[in-house]
Amino acid sequence: MCQLLGMNCNKPASISFSFEGFCCRGGQTDEHSDGWGIAFFEEKGCRLIIDDKPSITSPLAELVKRNPVKSCNVIAHIRKATQGPVALENSHPFRRELWGRTWVFAHNGHLKTFAPDLFGAFLPVGATDSERAFCYLLQSLKARFGDTQPAVEVLHEALQALAEEIATHGVFNFLLSNGEVQFAHCSTLLHYVTRQYPFAKAHLVDCELSMDFNEHNHLDDCITVIATKPLTSNENWVAFAPGELKMFRNGVEQGAGERQLAMAC
Amino acid sequence: MCQLLGMNCNKPASISFSFEGFCCRGGQTDEHSDGWGIAFFEEKGCRLIIDDKPSITSPLAELVKRNPVKSCNVIAHIRKATQGPVALENSHPFRRELWGRTWVFAHNGHLKTFAPDLFGAFLPVGATDSERAFCYLLQSLKARFGDTQPAVEVLHEALQALAEEIATHGVFNFLLSNGEVQFAHCSTLLHYVTRQYPFAKAHLVDCELSMDFNEHNHLDDCITVIATKPLTSNENWVAFAPGELKMFRNGVEQGAGERQLAMAC
Repeated sequence: MCQLLGMNCNKPASISFSFEGFCCRGGQTDEHSDGWGIAFFEEKGCRLIIDDKPSITSPLAELVKRNPVKSCNVIAHIRKATQGPVALENSHPFRRELWGRTWVFAHNGHLKTFAPDLFGAFLPVGATDSERAFCYLLQSLKARFGDTQPAVEVLHEALQALAEEIATHGVFNFLLSNGEVQFAHCSTLLHYVTRQYPFAKAHLVDCELSMDFNEHNHLDDCITVIATKPLTSNENWVAFAPGELKMFRNGVEQGAGERQLAMAC
Repeated sequence: MCQLLGMNCNKPASISFSFEGFCCRGGQTDEHSDGWGIAFFEEKGCRLIIDDKPSITSPLAELVKRNPVKSCNVIAHIRKATQGPVALENSHPFRRELWGRTWVFAHNGHLKTFAPDLFGAFLPVGATDSERAFCYLLQSLKARFGDTQPAVEVLHEALQALAEEIATHGVFNFLLSNGEVQFAHCSTLLHYVTRQYPFAKAHLVDCELSMDFNEHNHLDDCITVIATKPLTSNENWVAFAPGELKMFRNGVEQGAGERQLAMAC
């Protein structure tokens, strides 16, 4: 299978530190060496870098580490091929335009029996179950909401139902963003950590690298990092519950306050 | 306005030499410093690199020069902003998926009065006349041919009529590819050269660099390079006629034989 890395924050930030550890899993500390990719949103614009080579030896991955792009929404992926051969068109993240915005999607899992009817608005270019699921998600959102994007809270609810439906076909951990919010769905394995004041010093588990976030962040910075498995050894990574779809905006999980209140009652 | 660079060939080749000269026009030998981009097809897969910084100082452009990607279809662009501010989402080439293939488009020109009705299948993310024109092209092709791509010869004919229609709104030089063929439309200014045996030694006009294609190519290589203005000083660049839409496949202009025959009769 694959691994996912996402970042959502309130001000453009660099993902270089987390990406450094994540890349090690693409052929060094782990076996995900069948390609990698990373998408950075800058307002409505989106840079997408994909490669069908291992991230650990990729010149493009080196460039991303050395020339950090600052972004409020990032989605990265390292691939261990299950469906679809090792090829550029099968490398995540995938992107499409819907409602005049770029949407980016990456998947960890395996949807063995998923062959949805796709009517032509969004068709897969490659041969992965993942791109099929992405096309189906966007097709379903467009069919339901027409030509205008609804409020993100409404999208969240619709995506929860769609994710549940697709997850009946197998393992469906995914990250999805339109540059405004980031959705993260856990089917089996997904974690996140929110970094905010007071900041800590963090140490990567995949390589000998530490960072003191006090030195790099401002008091009002709020950064959530989402990853298949925790990337650092001394931070409070929170495991998603199976079936959970979280929505992050400005680095904060949306709706968390309401849920905490409901649980307290 | 902007400048265009395209390449279409029969075997994956590197565009590094031409790109080296082209990049000089992005802030050094010419004024096109409001962003740049390049798309490489590898079979159905597509790498798209875009930047809103000048190509002459871009680390990404340096990487493209130093790590040549081999491709049969390349489209590159350097931008001098006319409509839409300097921003990532306004940087060419643009990409969309249609008929399960990635389509890439770059434009040189200015469509002052072009405000087509876009019905939702393809909507612009940025604010350029160019992306509007691309969306309109794809929308029109989809409306005419439904959910399956017709033969490229049929597409060629349909695109000629669409290009004529859009060009009534201003200057509309463009490159368009689905990774299989490359279309090049000249409204005011576009040139191409086809490199095949016997190969020559070429010298860039924008910087001190020469290349002896005999040393780098095989006897059966066939490579067409398309550019707004000729990139080399000692090759036979052919000027497009205004209003002409050429289709290139495997490095060869399609339909050229038939036209030559017709002219000879």
